[in-house]
Amino acid sequence: MASIGVVGIGLIGGSIAKGLPEPATVFDSDSKSLELARAEGLRVAGSLNELVNTVDVLFIGVPFEAFDSVFAEVQAAAATREKPLVVSNVLSVMLPVEVTEPNVVFIAGHPMAGTEHSGFENAVGELFERATWVLAPTADVDREHFALLANTVKLLGVEIVVTEPEQHNAIVAQISHLPHVLAAAQILAVPEDDKADSVYGLAASSFRDSTRVASTKAELTAAMVNNNREEVLHALAKLRGSLDAFEELLRAGDDRGVVDLFARAKKQRDEHL
Amino acid sequence: MASIGVVGIGLIGGSIAKGLPEPATVFDSDSKSLELARAEGLRVAGSLNELVNTVDVLFIGVPFEAFDSVFAEVQAAAATREKPLVVSNVLSVMLPVEVTEPNVVFIAGHPMAGTEHSGFENAVGELFERATWVLAPTADVDREHFALLANTVKLLGVEIVVTEPEQHNAIVAQISHLPHVLAAAQILAVPEDDKADSVYGLAASSFRDSTRVASTKAELTAAMVNNNREEVLHALAKLRGSLDAFEELLRAGDDRGVVDLFARAKKQRDEHL
Repeated sequence: MASIGVVGIGLIGGSIAKGLPEPATVFDSDSKSLELARAEGLRVAGSLNELVNTVDVLFIGVPFEAFDSVFAEVQAAAATREKPLVVSNVLSVMLPVEVTEPNVVFIAGHPMAGTEHSGFENAVGELFERATWVLAPTADVDREHFALLANTVKLLGVEIVVTEPEQHNAIVAQISHLPHVLAAAQILAVPEDDKADSVYGLAASSFRDSTRVASTKAELTAAMVNNNREEVLHALAKLRGSLDAFEELLRAGDDRGVVDLFARAKKQRDEHL
Repeated sequence: MASIGVVGIGLIGGSIAKGLPEPATVFDSDSKSLELARAEGLRVAGSLNELVNTVDVLFIGVPFEAFDSVFAEVQAAAATREKPLVVSNVLSVMLPVEVTEPNVVFIAGHPMAGTEHSGFENAVGELFERATWVLAPTADVDREHFALLANTVKLLGVEIVVTEPEQHNAIVAQISHLPHVLAAAQILAVPEDDKADSVYGLAASSFRDSTRVASTKAELTAAMVNNNREEVLHALAKLRGSLDAFEELLRAGDDRGVVDLFARAKKQRDEHL
């Protein structure tokens, strides 16, 4: 097995490190996370430079705002390597990444798994089992390096989907970022007054489930939505179209039409999910 | 323990019958459900008339469209009773019910629990554990009859909330009917073309959870929405207000504002759910 490294061991990076069959080597700017990682039997590198120079594949698990500077450090550190380092990331929006170091092969990646929790303490090796992992290699990535990354993520029990970054971003806006906006919007639609308790007091599984991801750390959710602004607005416009259809039927008192609309949704969901 | 009857043993009525510590007596127009009920050790009445004349408390578990006729039959059958029968229902909208039989004490009820499945075969006795059960007694219901019903539903492990029907309907529009509309609307926003598979292929837990209830039987979902039209439209209008707030910030590129909005939603949800 290739030697695998992870820099940034939050929920996703930590789950990668814990999920691999052989201990990954990790680094993080947070010393507490590194202590926890050591206690769990992971190898801890002394620095990002050391990590870059001791592994074959490196996952960058840091959030959006830290990615550029960490990737710059990785490129600088890779200059002294003897063979190329395959680098991937886990961000929920695939943004352009400029590779300037010949020793770095970058392939954008995004595991379609997560929870509303964050941090290494919530990371679990089983997070990705049966999940989909999107990879978006650019045309200049050769087959061998792609295979090295693909075989590594397969060790986590995922199915790989190869796509273009633009298509990925449009789809995640609809199936991930929009649910996060809707979850928060449903909560914000409950006025924070003395009636709030009576509203939440009746909440059953439908409300709990449809608002679950509103408990995600706000900075994480906001970063993915802000970095995918146009696609999220587009997904919201499509959703408003569906809501318009429901509203028109309800206003018209068209009970049969409402049944048909719900029936179409049920058919589509049952067929695809 | 009082003798308990259930007419209409679908998901909710069946779960009541299965969840009581002593076998309930049940009746249903579907003979297959009755066979299954008998096999599970429940008592099966030979007719609704027999059921009405052998129990102290009767739950009507039939859906909206059957309620009026079943309730009329119950009232007619109760005329020969020696003492009043306490009757409750389980509909997700509390509509006016006209009691004409002196032997019938009706108290509207609504257990805040369910799944996207239906039918006796999906009923489970644990469905209501730790759930909330809304009861809306009218002013003429005496304490003794209310206590009889309340003590019965408590046997299912629920917490009782007493409310006015109007308040109940406004709240469930927001925390149950709206999530159902949003789940369906999100599915309907995915075009049913050759790209559908690539969209659903990336769906992770956020999309699965936020669309789960779109797999509910369409007739059941439509009935609750159609019977609570004004309140559902009101809840939709409030939701659109929250969506407007997100859209304005996204359009303005106000990243910090988006963080703040998500942070407010997270704070509210974590405090209340």
